[in-house]
Amino acid sequence: MLTHLRELVFGPPLPTGRLEGERLNKVRALAALSPDALSSVAYANQEIFLGLAVAGAAGLAYSLPIAVAIAGLLVIVSVSYSQTLWAYPTGGGSYTVAKENLGATPGLVAAGALLIDYVLTAAVSLTAGVAAIASAFPMLWPYRVPLSLAILLIILVANLRGLRESGTAMTIPVYLFLGSFGAMLVAGLVTAAREGPGDWSGVPATGVPITLVLLLHTFAAGCTALTGIEAISNGITVFRPPVSRNASRTLAIMAVLMVALFLGSIGLIHYLAVVPQQAETILSALARRILGDSGGYYLVQGATLLILAVAANTSFADFPRVASILARDRYLPGQFANLGDRLVYSNGMLVLATLTAILIFVFGGDSHALIPLFAVGVFLAFTLSQAGMVVHWIRARSAGWRFKSLVNGVGATLTAATFLIVAFSKFREGAWIVLVLIPAMAIVFRAVHLHYREVSRGLTLHGLPPDLRPAPKPRVVIPISGVHRGIVDAVRYAQAISDEVRAVYVEIHPGQAEAVLRQWHDWWPDIPLDIIPSPYRSLIGPLLSYLDQIDEHFNDGLQATVLLPEFVPAHWWQGLLHNQTAWLLKTAMLYRRRRHGYQRAIIDVPYHLKR
Amino acid sequence: MLTHLRELVFGPPLPTGRLEGERLNKVRALAALSPDALSSVAYANQEIFLGLAVAGAAGLAYSLPIAVAIAGLLVIVSVSYSQTLWAYPTGGGSYTVAKENLGATPGLVAAGALLIDYVLTAAVSLTAGVAAIASAFPMLWPYRVPLSLAILLIILVANLRGLRESGTAMTIPVYLFLGSFGAMLVAGLVTAAREGPGDWSGVPATGVPITLVLLLHTFAAGCTALTGIEAISNGITVFRPPVSRNASRTLAIMAVLMVALFLGSIGLIHYLAVVPQQAETILSALARRILGDSGGYYLVQGATLLILAVAANTSFADFPRVASILARDRYLPGQFANLGDRLVYSNGMLVLATLTAILIFVFGGDSHALIPLFAVGVFLAFTLSQAGMVVHWIRARSAGWRFKSLVNGVGATLTAATFLIVAFSKFREGAWIVLVLIPAMAIVFRAVHLHYREVSRGLTLHGLPPDLRPAPKPRVVIPISGVHRGIVDAVRYAQAISDEVRAVYVEIHPGQAEAVLRQWHDWWPDIPLDIIPSPYRSLIGPLLSYLDQIDEHFNDGLQATVLLPEFVPAHWWQGLLHNQTAWLLKTAMLYRRRRHGYQRAIIDVPYHLKR
Repeated sequence: MLTHLRELVFGPPLPTGRLEGERLNKVRALAALSPDALSSVAYANQEIFLGLAVAGAAGLAYSLPIAVAIAGLLVIVSVSYSQTLWAYPTGGGSYTVAKENLGATPGLVAAGALLIDYVLTAAVSLTAGVAAIASAFPMLWPYRVPLSLAILLIILVANLRGLRESGTAMTIPVYLFLGSFGAMLVAGLVTAAREGPGDWSGVPATGVPITLVLLLHTFAAGCTALTGIEAISNGITVFRPPVSRNASRTLAIMAVLMVALFLGSIGLIHYLAVVPQQAETILSALARRILGDSGGYYLVQGATLLILAVAANTSFADFPRVASILARDRYLPGQFANLGDRLVYSNGMLVLATLTAILIFVFGGDSHALIPLFAVGVFLAFTLSQAGMVVHWIRARSAGWRFKSLVNGVGATLTAATFLIVAFSKFREGAWIVLVLIPAMAIVFRAVHLHYREVSRGLTLHGLPPDLRPAPKPRVVIPISGVHRGIVDAVRYAQAISDEVRAVYVEIHPGQAEAVLRQWHDWWPDIPLDIIPSPYRSLIGPLLSYLDQIDEHFNDGLQATVLLPEFVPAHWWQGLLHNQTAWLLKTAMLYRRRRHGYQRAIIDVPYHLKR
Repeated sequence: MLTHLRELVFGPPLPTGRLEGERLNKVRALAALSPDALSSVAYANQEIFLGLAVAGAAGLAYSLPIAVAIAGLLVIVSVSYSQTLWAYPTGGGSYTVAKENLGATPGLVAAGALLIDYVLTAAVSLTAGVAAIASAFPMLWPYRVPLSLAILLIILVANLRGLRESGTAMTIPVYLFLGSFGAMLVAGLVTAAREGPGDWSGVPATGVPITLVLLLHTFAAGCTALTGIEAISNGITVFRPPVSRNASRTLAIMAVLMVALFLGSIGLIHYLAVVPQQAETILSALARRILGDSGGYYLVQGATLLILAVAANTSFADFPRVASILARDRYLPGQFANLGDRLVYSNGMLVLATLTAILIFVFGGDSHALIPLFAVGVFLAFTLSQAGMVVHWIRARSAGWRFKSLVNGVGATLTAATFLIVAFSKFREGAWIVLVLIPAMAIVFRAVHLHYREVSRGLTLHGLPPDLRPAPKPRVVIPISGVHRGIVDAVRYAQAISDEVRAVYVEIHPGQAEAVLRQWHDWWPDIPLDIIPSPYRSLIGPLLSYLDQIDEHFNDGLQATVLLPEFVPAHWWQGLLHNQTAWLLKTAMLYRRRRHGYQRAIIDVPYHLKR
C-alpha cells in the first residue's frame, strides 16, 4: 500500500538506461539556464531601493549611478565567464575550475560557497516571488512564510518525480516574464515620454547623510543582480555542438537581457520617481505606476512569481549535482551520489529542501533579511573561478593566453573587490554566518575525505596478501532464555556447523536455573549448558564477560560465534510485548566491536510464530 | 562515563538478595499507608467549596450536610474494607479480590481503574500540594505547572533510587501534617468559641438555584475524600503479626483521623464563614483566618504540600506494583515485571511519571480540572472490590458469613450508587474519558494475554516432539559490495561451515560487474559469484528474489543462510558516511520474516576498521 502511494506521488521507478543527456537548441537552453540570472532583477532592484531609501529622496537619486556600476560589473563578469565556456566545454563549474587550477582547498571552498548559494537562491527566489504576488494581493502578505513553504514543497515533489529543468513547461515562465516585463518597460518609456520626469519631493528627508559606506552597502546588496550568471558554464553540456560557440552566444544574449531589464527598470523608477506603498515591492510599485490596476499589472506580478519559482527550481538541479560530484570525489557521504527511483539525486534534493525551509522559517519569509548572506558566497565562487581561469591560461600558454588571462584577471580582481565590499558592509547583518560556514564546510569535506581514504586503505587487497584458507570450524555459544521450541532450530543449526557447541543461561531470578538445567539435559544430554548467576539482574554484561572467559579457556585464538535464537512475532506491535533481548545483545556487541575490536560473528536463527 | 553518571544519580546497582519485606509497627505502618487518604482532605474540601460557591452564600450553607453524608459513606466503606483485611491477610487489592471472586473481566476492569487512579492520585496530589504552597506565596501561583513537574521529577528520581515508602523520612511529613493541622483545628475551635459564628453575607448572591443536581454534583466531587482508604488492604503485608488485627486497628485509626480532619475543617469553614481570596485554596483561607499571617499558617501550608507530595509518592509504590502483578499474570508486557538496578520496578515508574506529567501539563496544573476524572475510577474499584467480598463470604460460608456479606453488600451498594452519581454528574467535565479508558484498557489487557498464550503454545515442547537431529549443513550466500579485504574473513567463515558457498553481486551501475567478476576469480576461483543486474538501482528487492530462486534451484527444502560481511567503522558518526546496506538488508529480511514466514538464518561477520 505504501508502495502504491509512493508511486502515485512520485511516479513508478525508472530503469538506469533511461538516463540520457538531452541536447537543447539555444532558445530552450536559454530558458533552462537563465531563470536564476534574469529573475535576480526582482530582488536586486528591491535591495537598491531599500538601501538608498534610508537617506530619503537625496539617497534615492543615487540609484541610477549605482545600477550603472553594477551593470558594468555584470558585463565584465560575463565576458570573463565566456572564456570559461571555451576552455571547459564539458562543464566548468567553480568547483571544477578552482580545484583543477588552484588546488583542492580552493576547490572545496568554492564548493562550500556554491552549496550555500544554491540554498540561498532557493530561499531568496521563493520569498521574493511570494512578495511579488503578495504585493498584488495584499491579503496574502501576512502568509508569506506558509506560501513560500507550500511552493517549496510543490517544487520538491516535482523534482523528486524527475522534473527536467529543460522541459518545455519550464520555458513558458521564462518567455512569459521576458515578454510581459519587456512590454511593461516599453509602456514605461511611453509613459515617461508623455508625462515627463517625476520627483521624490514626497519622500520625507531622513537626516541620514549619504556616506561612502551607505553607497558601498547599497552596491553590495545590488550585486545580487549578478547571481545566476555562472549557470551557463555549469550547464554547458545541454548545448548542441558546436557547444562552446552556442553557449557563449547564449551567454551574450542573457547578459544583454539582464542589463536591459535591470537598467530599464531602475531607470524608469528613477525617472518616474516611483515609491512603493507599505507591503509592496518596488517593482510592483513600478508596474502599478505604468500599468495601473489593470490585467497587465497582475500579469507582470504573476510572471515574476513564476520565473522566481523556476529560479528556485534551478537550485534543485544544481545543488544535488554539485553534491553528487563532491560525493563521487569522496568529499561528501556516498548517499549523495545515489540515483533515486526516478533517476534523480533524491538525497541532495531532500537536504536542499530541508535547509531552504529552515532558512525561510528562521528569516520570516523576508528576502531582504536573507540578502546579506547571499552575495558573499556568490562572489567568493566567482573570484575563485576567475582566478582559476587566470592560472589555466598561464599554464596552457595557448594562442592569445596573455590577453585571455588579462580578461579573467580583470574579472577576478573586480569580483574579489566586490566580495570584500559585500563581506565587510554586510558582515554584521548576516554575512558573518556564511564566512564562518564556508571554511567549516571545507573542513568537514576534508574530514570525510580522510575517513574514506582510511577505509579504502583498510579494504585494499594489495600489499600483504590476506590468509585465504578456510577458517577453522567455529565454536558456537547459544544464549538461551529457557528450554522451549524456539531454541530447537537454533541448536540443530549450531550442530550442523560446529563440533563445539554449548549453551548458556543467565540466571536472573535465583533458583530458576535448576529447572532449566534439568529440562536441558532431558532434551540435549550431549551439549553442555553453562549457568551464569546474575545477582544484579543484568543480562548483557555477564554474557559478554562469559564469552571472553570461554575464549580464554579454549585459548585457540578464536572468538566464539554467538548464535541467537531469535523469536520473530507475527506483527511489529507484538515486539513491544517481548524483552528484545536479542536486539539488545546485538547492539551491545556492536558497541563492543567499536570499542574493543571485537570480531565475533553473530548468527540469527529465527523462530517464526504463526499468529 | 555514562555509567558513572547513572550511579551518581540513581546509586549503584543492588543484588537481588537485598530484596526483603520489612515489617512495620502500627505507628510506622500508619505513616506508610495513610498519606493518600489523609491528604485527600485538602482537595475534597476545595471541591465542596467550589461546587457550592456557584450558588452563592445560600449554596455554601449546604457544605456541612454534604460533608456529613460523605463522612458517613467513609465510615461504611472503612468497615466494609476492614472485613477484607481478615479475609485477605496476604494482600487484598481490588484486582485480586475482584478477579478471584467475580472472574477475570471484572478483575481487569478493576485493574484498569486502579492504574488510572494511581496516575490521577499523583497528578491531583502534586497540583493540590503546589496550590497549597502557592496560596502562601502568591508569586508562585503562575508557576504551578513547572513547580508540580519539578516535584514530580524529584519523586521519580528518589523512587528510581529505591526510596522505600516505609522509610523513617516518610513518617515525618505525615505526623507533621497531623500535628499542625490538628493544632490548627483546636485553635479554630477556640477562635469559634471566642468570636461566635460568622456569616457569608459578604458573598454576593449569584441567582443560581440550589437544585438536587447541584448538590449531587458537589457530593460527587467531595467523595474524593475517600481516595486512599483502600491502601491498607493493598499494603497489608507490611504489618507485623497478628497481621489482620494490627491492620484493622490501623484502618480504624485512619478512618477516625480522616473523619476528624474532614468534618473539623469543613465545620470550621462553615461556622466561621471563611471565603478564600483569588489564587488561594479554601484550606489556606481557613488557616489564615485562624492563625493569621503567622509562622503557624506557613507551617500548615508547608505540611500540606509535604503530605500531598508523600501521597503522590505512594503512587510510585502502587502503580508499579499493580503493573508488575498484571505483567506476571501476563496481562501487561513482561518489562513491567523486571526489577531494575535498584530493585524497583523502574519501567512502571517511568510510565507513571510520564503519564502524570502529561496530565499536569494538559490540565494546566489545576487539581480542580482533574477531579472529575478522579473519583470515577476510585469508586468503580471500590464497588468491584466490595462486590467481590460479598461473593467471597457467600462461597466461604464461614462463621457469620451472612452478617459479613451484608456489611460488604451495603458497602458495595453505596459505592456503586456513588460511582453512578459521579459518572453522571461529572460525565461531561471529564469522567467520560475514564469511562472510555477503563474498558479500552481491559481490552488491551486481554489482547496482550491472548498473544502471550499463543506464544507459549507455539513454544511448548510438549505434544509432538520436534526433530532433534542436527540440521543438514547450510548453503551459504554472501552478498558482496566489491572485492576487498572486508569480505575475506566472511568468505573464510563461510567455507568453514558450509560446502556450498556462493557470492552474489548486485550490479547497480551497468558495466561494473565485469571488473568485480574478474577480481573475484583471481582471489576465489573455486567459489561461484552470481551477478544480478538491477536496472532500477535497488539492492534489496533483487537480492531477496535471487535468494528465493537459489532455494528453488537447489530444491532441498532448505533456505540458504545469508552471510553478511559487515563493515564496522570505529566511530558511530562514520556510519553516516556509509550506505548501511547490511542494516537495510537485515531490516528487509525481518519484514519478510513477519510477512512470509521466512526462516533464513543470517550471519554477521564483522570487519573492523582500525581508525
